[in-house]
Amino acid sequence: SSSTTPIKATLFPGDGIGPEIAESVKQVFTAADVAIEWDEHYVSTEVDPRTNSFLTWESLQSVLDNKVGLKGPMATPIGKGHRSLNLTLRKELNLYANVRPCYSLPGYKTRYDDVDLVTIRENTEGEYSGLEHQVVKGVVESIKIITRKASMRVAEYAFLYAKTHGRKKVSAIHKANIMQKTDGLFLKCCDEVAEKYPEIEYEKVVIDNCCMMLVKNPALFDVLVMPNLYGDIISDLCAGLVGGLGLTPSCNIGEDGIALAEAVHGSAPDIAGKNLANPTALLLSGVMMLRHLKLNNQAEQIHSAIINTIAEGKYRTADLGGNSTTTEFTKAIIDHL
Amino acid sequence: SSSTTPIKATLFPGDGIGPEIAESVKQVFTAADVAIEWDEHYVSTEVDPRTNSFLTWESLQSVLDNKVGLKGPMATPIGKGHRSLNLTLRKELNLYANVRPCYSLPGYKTRYDDVDLVTIRENTEGEYSGLEHQVVKGVVESIKIITRKASMRVAEYAFLYAKTHGRKKVSAIHKANIMQKTDGLFLKCCDEVAEKYPEIEYEKVVIDNCCMMLVKNPALFDVLVMPNLYGDIISDLCAGLVGGLGLTPSCNIGEDGIALAEAVHGSAPDIAGKNLANPTALLLSGVMMLRHLKLNNQAEQIHSAIINTIAEGKYRTADLGGNSTTTEFTKAIIDHL
Ligand SMILES: CC(C)[C@H](C(=O)O)[C@@H](O)C(=O)O
Ligand SMILES: CC(C)[C@H](C(=O)O)[C@@H](O)C(=O)O
Repeated sequence: SSSTTPIKATLFPGDGIGPEIAESVKQVFTAADVAIEWDEHYVSTEVDPRTNSFLTWESLQSVLDNKVGLKGPMATPIGKGHRSLNLTLRKELNLYANVRPCYSLPGYKTRYDDVDLVTIRENTEGEYSGLEHQVVKGVVESIKIITRKASMRVAEYAFLYAKTHGRKKVSAIHKANIMQKTDGLFLKCCDEVAEKYPEIEYEKVVIDNCCMMLVKNPALFDVLVMPNLYGDIISDLCAGLVGGLGLTPSCNIGEDGIALAEAVHGSAPDIAGKNLANPTALLLSGVMMLRHLKLNNQAEQIHSAIINTIAEGKYRTADLGGNSTTTEFTKAIIDHL
Repeated sequence: SSSTTPIKATLFPGDGIGPEIAESVKQVFTAADVAIEWDEHYVSTEVDPRTNSFLTWESLQSVLDNKVGLKGPMATPIGKGHRSLNLTLRKELNLYANVRPCYSLPGYKTRYDDVDLVTIRENTEGEYSGLEHQVVKGVVESIKIITRKASMRVAEYAFLYAKTHGRKKVSAIHKANIMQKTDGLFLKCCDEVAEKYPEIEYEKVVIDNCCMMLVKNPALFDVLVMPNLYGDIISDLCAGLVGGLGLTPSCNIGEDGIALAEAVHGSAPDIAGKNLANPTALLLSGVMMLRHLKLNNQAEQIHSAIINTIAEGKYRTADLGGNSTTTEFTKAIIDHL
């Protein structure tokens, strides 16, 4: 409530529609009387030599200091000599797990109405190592790295998440029948951690089969944990089941209790500045941030307001088949608080 | 017809339910008067040192001689010192493209009724290189290889396939925003080939986005071409849209006109020998083999009989919610010929 000292949280509005949807979050949080003081940082127009990216050193430092933040979409600028912004954040802040809850939204109809799962993606290594080279002309290779350290910590995170969120099962997703050493190590770590959680059901599912089962019957899954690339693929597939990335939140977890919640959709430059963007994914990501901060009452209050506004169906942005503006939709949520 | 000299084709019935579904194919082909003489080869119980696998040298030679074959499921035996049977076939026979048409079956209801696409998977390299090692304790790596040669030939196959099958669009699936060198080379090859087919629409789609779009609206896609692992994942996802691997055919294409059609589902040891297996995937794979042999009339005749039997719904195996035996379902197809 307004009498408590505000918690400082970093806010990256991001590019394109980012500032508009960030504004929506700020308004909803203010209306819900959330005691957060935003420490806003923008993507720079120049490469900061200390980060070798368009993210400034100060903005990264802000997350490390506040230990909590919310991030809008960042378009990776075209050109050479600097790194992708999303990857810079994950690597520099050591955000080792990417958590994406994915559930059917009441009243928003897709082909599925029975989705309620969480993907937990290793976020720092695997195919995202950045190690690639040409062997000889016409022959190139990329190196996938799997370490015991990163696999253990994401596996531990996944089982702890399952336990603390009342989830019943963890599925480790892999292709160890082909990548026996890398995915094999990942699975071995999951096996080890699973032993410590006898109350959580544990299974191993080959990625191709997992994708087939997800589209046939997503209710088979609960918590899924997996290496980086599989997480990238499967989390988008799951988002597709319930309507797409405009509706699904995510949160990146780092060491020492750092959490950077993030809308993973694009910056939609075509509709930027037109008051047409759907702020749902960023709002729901903000809710994940509040839960991380243990501001559970306000998290649930805001979450219900978002869900009920969408379920009611009176105010929806164009991507959901409606004709509300961002501000109208935001106001409807505030009215539901 | 029965008066022509029969074409010799290799048949690998495979393990588990393999022999039963292969018998179904033989009966349907005989009933349709297909002039094929099957050259049957079984998976051996001992490792053949010439192939370092349970596949004998003679069986591989048979495919090379006949240039055409049909393969049932092969369970990769557990143990060390020999290679996966499926991979042995692909590598030894240089089966560079795996083609999987995927379409909604009239009368067999899933959440989708608008699927009609073909995945074309590079089948020899990528993450399937077999190159893996431990760097130091707790750190392992797998190497993904992409070559210009293999990328060009699968891209060429995909565009030629699109053209000769009246398809309008080819989508190249990749993660070149992360694997710029490997997937970048793959895309460059697709770009080059696309130039030669101005009449075919061409687009590049990032794999995560592709999976999201596939589950939201599969009608967006037509022909998809991609590196090995993405093909493994996406072809199973697509199969899931229309009911699963029990219903979808595949064909592996090699150099010099070699084609090995293949049911890609498992050997289902739990129901093996019980006359319960669904032969549809192997039958439809057989149809792909007939089309490859330009036996188009018989291919269409058999194809229609399969489709109509499933659409009629009177005879369906247990996996499709019916209670017909393999032989009853096979007889129903023969009656529809
Ligand atoms: C933009 C891209 C680099 C990123 C990724 O591949 O991780 C995105 O797809 C995501 O899932 O956050
Ligand atoms: C069994 C396995 C090795 C194989 C693969 O990964 O290619 C299978 O999934 C397939 O798609 O044919």
